[in-house]
Amino acid sequence: MTDAPARTVDAFHRGRFHLVQPCGRGHRAGMDAMLLASMVDGSGRLRVADLGAGAGAAGLAVASRLGEAEVSLFEMSPDMADYARQTLGLSQNAELAGRVSVYEADVTLKGAARNAAGLVDGRFDHVIMNPPFNEAADRRTPDALKGVAHAMPEGLFENWIRTAGAILRPGGQMSLIARPQSIGAIIAACGNRFGGLEITPVHARQGEDAFRVLASAVKGSRARLSLRASSSCTGRKATRSCRMSMTSTMAAHLIRAMPPEDPQFFELRSCLYLSCAYMRRNVLPR
Amino acid sequence: MTDAPARTVDAFHRGRFHLVQPCGRGHRAGMDAMLLASMVDGSGRLRVADLGAGAGAAGLAVASRLGEAEVSLFEMSPDMADYARQTLGLSQNAELAGRVSVYEADVTLKGAARNAAGLVDGRFDHVIMNPPFNEAADRRTPDALKGVAHAMPEGLFENWIRTAGAILRPGGQMSLIARPQSIGAIIAACGNRFGGLEITPVHARQGEDAFRVLASAVKGSRARLSLRASSSCTGRKATRSCRMSMTSTMAAHLIRAMPPEDPQFFELRSCLYLSCAYMRRNVLPR
Repeated sequence: MTDAPARTVDAFHRGRFHLVQPCGRGHRAGMDAMLLASMVDGSGRLRVADLGAGAGAAGLAVASRLGEAEVSLFEMSPDMADYARQTLGLSQNAELAGRVSVYEADVTLKGAARNAAGLVDGRFDHVIMNPPFNEAADRRTPDALKGVAHAMPEGLFENWIRTAGAILRPGGQMSLIARPQSIGAIIAACGNRFGGLEITPVHARQGEDAFRVLASAVKGSRARLSLRASSSCTGRKATRSCRMSMTSTMAAHLIRAMPPEDPQFFELRSCLYLSCAYMRRNVLPR
Repeated sequence: MTDAPARTVDAFHRGRFHLVQPCGRGHRAGMDAMLLASMVDGSGRLRVADLGAGAGAAGLAVASRLGEAEVSLFEMSPDMADYARQTLGLSQNAELAGRVSVYEADVTLKGAARNAAGLVDGRFDHVIMNPPFNEAADRRTPDALKGVAHAMPEGLFENWIRTAGAILRPGGQMSLIARPQSIGAIIAACGNRFGGLEITPVHARQGEDAFRVLASAVKGSRARLSLRASSSCTGRKATRSCRMSMTSTMAAHLIRAMPPEDPQFFELRSCLYLSCAYMRRNVLPR
């Protein structure tokens, strides 16, 4: 017997990176993190901040796909930040680890305290976030660690998006994944900070209500909101907000069907081909 | 030569009702009005208010499909209200005319003035609206009559949705059609007045951004927002917010293909089969 918490090591992106995660408790990364990571594009030494990074799934997916990106993971929970540090210590992640940093920080800090925590004004090219989903009114989870990751305090989007607006360079992009009922709070929080908001519904199955939205916006832009196509895969390279605009079921089928050497599908495969048990159980068709 | 403004008489719903409209100026009804009308369902003497009714296309489409519905058209422009009255005077509309009333009224009135204008508190089961689309920042149209119909003053959704909330019975439904960039204003205006907001993106072609959203909400409901499937036609009878959840291109193809005797498609055909020149030019495939 040991006091160390139970953990698993899961392979993502066909083994291009691995993730240390709590087992049987806490938030475990899956489709949401990979969808979020798919929103980041660019070349060179792109500075990416992952707010509320958990064990680091989304940030590491970005670092794995974009070979020069420098990723900062911000996580308030000491437990989850520790999983992220264990993740970076894995020998399988040696090639990425030099480009990824972990900051134990509350992303809702303001002013000097926020800067001191590593959330430096104007520093980042891209900010990604997968904020806690469940509203306070939801049933309480008996799992305290999962509770912190899943609870959605009042003003959450205002606080998180305020920080994203502060730490992005002008013209930098924020991307997030959320539940559809948060659209109003997201639009309100973008306010005058962001423009060009693009919202992409994500449907688990064709004909069903969206279970998530992907949203991206550009700091200082004055462009209007647009609502992207949700469930088509045209084969074209999609524009910035959605490299992944199909249902997860469709995607899973495509992934199984696509030839590994097809460059057109590299992005898709890179974003979605997940070998961890969670994905096998919940996303990939049997 | 005559001083009477040019007008056309257009057949809708395969001739089940006709509409008198300005020709070459003013707002002409088409797909938007029919999509909006498709949101209304129910039986018996359903009381329906059409805010900003123009010549009455959406309201008449509802009266034509729901044989006992009583429809009140509210229109501020004397010119457009006159077209609506001419519409009701057509011999082709004789069967409907007894169930449709025209009120020349500003839907943004408040309190006693609003009630005096026919916008009576708690009176209606369903309120539909197709508010002016173009924001003040848009290019000015040289056509003054069209300008009034298309201009979107500050606070428009707040003012229109406030009136909808006042004149609906508790549990009554509001439905509207708008541009995607208005989602934030719509959600904010629903506030505590409405719940169960359902947003359905409408795409002209698969894979393109939505060009319209359909939204419905229930007075006094506390249900959360949902984002409906946008571009599938499952063949099932859809739930309240969207009898029409496919792209217009898909719909046009379906309409051409469907057997007239198929009851499953009655709603769809009823909502979309438009014989007016506008629809032939803009929606139906050549």
